Formats: sequence, C-alpha cells, structure tokens
Amino acid sequence: MPPKARVLLVGAGGIGTIAALNLERGGLAEVTCVLRSNYEAVRSQGIEIISCEHGHIKNWRPTAVLNVIPRVRKEDSSTLFDYIICTTKNIPEVTPSICEIIAPAVTPGHTVIVLIQNGLNIEKPFLSHFPQNVILSGVSRCDAHEIAHGVIEQKEEDDLHIAAFRNPLLEPDTQQKTAEQFVRIYGAGGKTNVRHEPNWERDRWSKLVYNATLNPICALTGVNTGDLQIAGSALDRLVIPAMQEVVKVSKAVGVELPDDIIETTIRKNPMERKIAPSMQKDMEKGNLLEHENLIGEVVREAQKQGVATPVLSVLYELCSAIQWRVAKEKGIRIS
Amino acid sequence: MPPKARVLLVGAGGIGTIAALNLERGGLAEVTCVLRSNYEAVRSQGIEIISCEHGHIKNWRPTAVLNVIPRVRKEDSSTLFDYIICTTKNIPEVTPSICEIIAPAVTPGHTVIVLIQNGLNIEKPFLSHFPQNVILSGVSRCDAHEIAHGVIEQKEEDDLHIAAFRNPLLEPDTQQKTAEQFVRIYGAGGKTNVRHEPNWERDRWSKLVYNATLNPICALTGVNTGDLQIAGSALDRLVIPAMQEVVKVSKAVGVELPDDIIETTIRKNPMERKIAPSMQKDMEKGNLLEHENLIGEVVREAQKQGVATPVLSVLYELCSAIQWRVAKEKGIRIS
Repeated sequence: MPPKARVLLVGAGGIGTIAALNLERGGLAEVTCVLRSNYEAVRSQGIEIISCEHGHIKNWRPTAVLNVIPRVRKEDSSTLFDYIICTTKNIPEVTPSICEIIAPAVTPGHTVIVLIQNGLNIEKPFLSHFPQNVILSGVSRCDAHEIAHGVIEQKEEDDLHIAAFRNPLLEPDTQQKTAEQFVRIYGAGGKTNVRHEPNWERDRWSKLVYNATLNPICALTGVNTGDLQIAGSALDRLVIPAMQEVVKVSKAVGVELPDDIIETTIRKNPMERKIAPSMQKDMEKGNLLEHENLIGEVVREAQKQGVATPVLSVLYELCSAIQWRVAKEKGIRIS
Repeated sequence: MPPKARVLLVGAGGIGTIAALNLERGGLAEVTCVLRSNYEAVRSQGIEIISCEHGHIKNWRPTAVLNVIPRVRKEDSSTLFDYIICTTKNIPEVTPSICEIIAPAVTPGHTVIVLIQNGLNIEKPFLSHFPQNVILSGVSRCDAHEIAHGVIEQKEEDDLHIAAFRNPLLEPDTQQKTAEQFVRIYGAGGKTNVRHEPNWERDRWSKLVYNATLNPICALTGVNTGDLQIAGSALDRLVIPAMQEVVKVSKAVGVELPDDIIETTIRKNPMERKIAPSMQKDMEKGNLLEHENLIGEVVREAQKQGVATPVLSVLYELCSAIQWRVAKEKGIRIS
C-alpha cells in the first residue's frame, strides 16, 4: 500500500471540514488542519459534524490540528505536504496574502495547491508565486457552514468539481493527471460527488452568475435570496440585469454558458428558501467582504473586453466603500 | 394689530422646532405643534433648544401641543388654521399619506400648506388633494436635529427659501403674495435667513445633487460624506457620476444648475466633516427611507425624458429593496 498523501488544509470552516472528512475517511490521505478562530474549540473537543451525507459525528479530529502554518524542510521528506488545500475566503487586498501565508509549507515542484474558493482569477497570484507547482481549481456547491465554533452543519450533498488551472510552465498532461489523482483520493470514501471537470472557466463563470449578483445585492440590502424575488421590482430591475451582465462578460471572454443559466440560477434559490449568501452573512457580522474576486474581477474583465456593466460596477463600488469602512473600523490595512 | 396667524406644524423634529421658534418669536403667529414620538417629553418638560442663532433655551413651548391632528369646523372661524407646515419625512408609499393625515385641519380655499421637505414632486399629491389651496415650497438648509426626545440642536444658521408651487387653479399673483406674506411672518423675529426665492425648481434640483446621491450612497455603505472622499475610488466612480446624472436630468427638464454645482456640493461637505446624511441615520436606526422623492422621482423624470441614469437607478432599486425589508420587519404596508 502506498503511503497516505499528506494534506495541509487551511481554513477549516464548513467546506474545509467536509473536505478534510472526505479525505480522511477515504483512507488515502492524512490531513493536517490549520485553524484560527476555532483552534481552541477543536483542539479540546474535536469537531461536531451534522451532515446529510456522513450523519451526526461528535468529537471528530483530523490527523493533526495546528494554529500556524508549519515550515517544511526540503531535506526532511517526511514533513513535505503533497497537497495544500485552501478553503479560506479570498480577500486579496489584505496582506499578508494567502500565498504568503502558505509559502513556508509549499515545496516547489512538489506540493499541489488546491483552491476550493469562489471567484475569478483567484489562481493568478498562485501561478506567479509558485510557478513550478500544479494549482487545482475546486468549485464547490456544498452547503456547509460553521454554525458555532467547532460545529459544522452540511445541508446539501458535497458537489465538488476539480480541474487544473493552466500553468504554462508545466505539461498539460501532468496537470490533468494531478487533477484526476486528487479526485481519486478525495472521492475514495464514496460519500461525495467529486469529479474531474476540466472546463473550470465555465464552472466558475456559471457560479459567478450567482456570486457576482445575489451575493452583493443581498449584502447591500439585507434581503435574502428568497425574499428578493418578491421585494418589489428587485428581481426584474436589479438581479436579472446584473446576471445578464455576467453572461455578457462571460461570452466576451469566450465562455459560453447555457442559455437558461439565469432562470436555472434563480430557480435553484426559490422564494421559499430564505438563503443569506455568504457576503450578506459577512456584512451582518461586520467582516471584510470577498468582493474583489466575486465582482471586482468581473468588472475589470468587462473593462478589458469593452463590455458595459452598469449594474455590476455600481454594486462593486458600493462594496469597495464598505470594505474601506470595515478595514478602517478593524484597523486592517488594505491595498 | 391684526390677529396672529394660526399655524399648525406637523413634525416638530429639528427643522420643525426651529420653524416653530422663529414663528412664535416673530410675534405674528401662534403655533400648534402636532407631535408623535416626543409628545410626552415635550408636554411635561417643553423643548430644550441648543441653537447657534437662538442660544440655549430650556423648557420652551409653542402656543399649543397636540398628539393628533385637530378637526376644524368651518363654522367656527377661530379654530381655522391659516397655515399648516409639514416638516415630516416624505414617505409617499405609506398610507395614510401626509395629505390624508392633515386633511381634517385644512380649510379649502383658506389654509396655506407649507412643505418644508426635500425632494422632487412632493407638491403633486397636495395639489390634487387640496386644489383650492396655496401650496408653498420650503427648501431648508438648516442643520438642526433632535438629539434626544425633546432636545433640539441647531448647528447651522437657518436658511429657508420659500416659493409657491404652481397651483394652476389659482392666480399666480395671489400665490406669490402668499409666499411673501409667509416669509414676513416667519422672518419677523430676525434670527433666520428666510427669503422668497421664486425659482423653487432650481432650488430643489440643486439640493438633489446632494440628496439623490450622497444620501443613498452613505446609507448603503455606512460611510459618511467626509470619509467617502477618501474611501478608495468612491468619489470618482460613484459619487461624481451619480451627481452628473442628476445634473443631466435637471437640464433635460429645463432646470439649469450652476456649472460648478458638483464641486460646490462636494466642497460644502469636506473630508474633515463626518456628516451622516439623514438617510444614513434612518438606515442605522432601521427606519423607513425617504428615497422615493429623493431618488425615485429623479429616476422616473429621467425615464420620461429619455435620459440614462445607470448609477441612480441601481441606487434607487437597492433602496427600494431595503424599504421592502424594513416595512416587512415593522409590519407596515407599502404600496
């Protein structure tokens, strides 16, 4: 039997914990989780997981739990990480960046970095920081959240698409095989819908139809996705026009989305389901927003392509002003 | 000596109290204030006024204080009101409307209705409800606020422009004389900059350069007018484009604003002054917003004129969704 893959997982919130659980239960990986806010809770009592796929698990622990990123030494091959999975929020304007944070644990030419995160162009800083490493895209549609420190609730099946972001310095074939290998390790336990989906651009753009629109609109208005459909003219004059802009930009960059992507996205978040998207939750908690990769990059892509995005641009500028205020209130410097 | 003018004042917040004080001190009017939230406080202790023009006044009382609109009988001329001044917020989508509320105190063909309120087209429901009455426009630039129940702080000189809205059923000359007469009564005490300014359209549109833009932007972002000037790209990409749209619509409806109106408006609210506009305060308190007359009417005017207002339209739709949520939370029906 080959040795287990050594995985470092950064950001064990809802999505991260379900990933760690799937990897450990598959028996082909051992996972070290790096925790921050919930470190003490998890260290003393483990994690409680209430999952539609895994049942109710108490006091669960990955192979190891740390509160700092470990520094690996190339000489000691037993300490190297085969994979580093990032499931943190993506807030690129804050320093140190996630690239700088994980750098001590990355072995050039060896460690595969897996970004299970939303948004556009998230791979760019990783490709320039770690040019010799394979960077994988993870697009998750798993509804899992930390409902208290160390308590994770998973309400929807884990649905994870893996692909290699194109690293121009590496062989495409190597990158594809790496993606397939990660899918095998992740899926070995059987309780997940993980699959290799090479078209990560279409995957990410189709999720942006939701993320670049409902996320900021719900955050700015405090109206959840269900209520937004009956809140006066919001759906027709705000949500749908914003979604149409995302589709237009997507087309301009050469990514074709299904014709019914807007209806599908709306239908998946029906009136009865009062979902507060993550950005709305962050706003209510006074957290920094993940708006640069969710909307900012879409707006910048549009500018490059000469596509007008009047609605998205206003949403983006409003979010940026809020980010400025939150950073000031928290004493965080943003660039 | 002619008998004093009988004035009913509805909405004795900051602006309303300063108006009542000027009218009473001028000696040509007696004022009955209709109060709601601060009725008990004012009835028991009067009003405390901390004013840059009137000094520090304690236990001040107008001639009468009521908590309901009185019903006047035409037969009893001593109960008639010569003026009804509305200084409430304008939230036309809530019933009963302010027209319906004041109706029992209005004597057709006699009572002059003075709207010291912001926004566009506020006179329209009054002209149709009270076609035989003169309706006056009051554009106030007085920074006066209720800082606690029954405590009013006035930080800037009272600056009030009065004009007659055009009632097509009445003689222009009569309407102009009515405006001038109100200015005389209001200004008799000498401690106010009240004047007759016939061009109420230009007055209102020039105030909309602030009200339709900084009000909603500060409300939506929680960033005050001073900070907004240093909050990243907000000034250049959000505030100024929104102001340019107001100027464009204003021009389309035939109202010429000074060329430097945008710079003047920004300079009047400099970085050092951390002003939270009224809509931002309402948002923070969870109150309904005054956005229909401040932005909604500008957007609708623009649509009629075929002028594009991409920024204002998004701000308006966001405010409308918030209004829907606040109304739902408060159990208020809005139309």
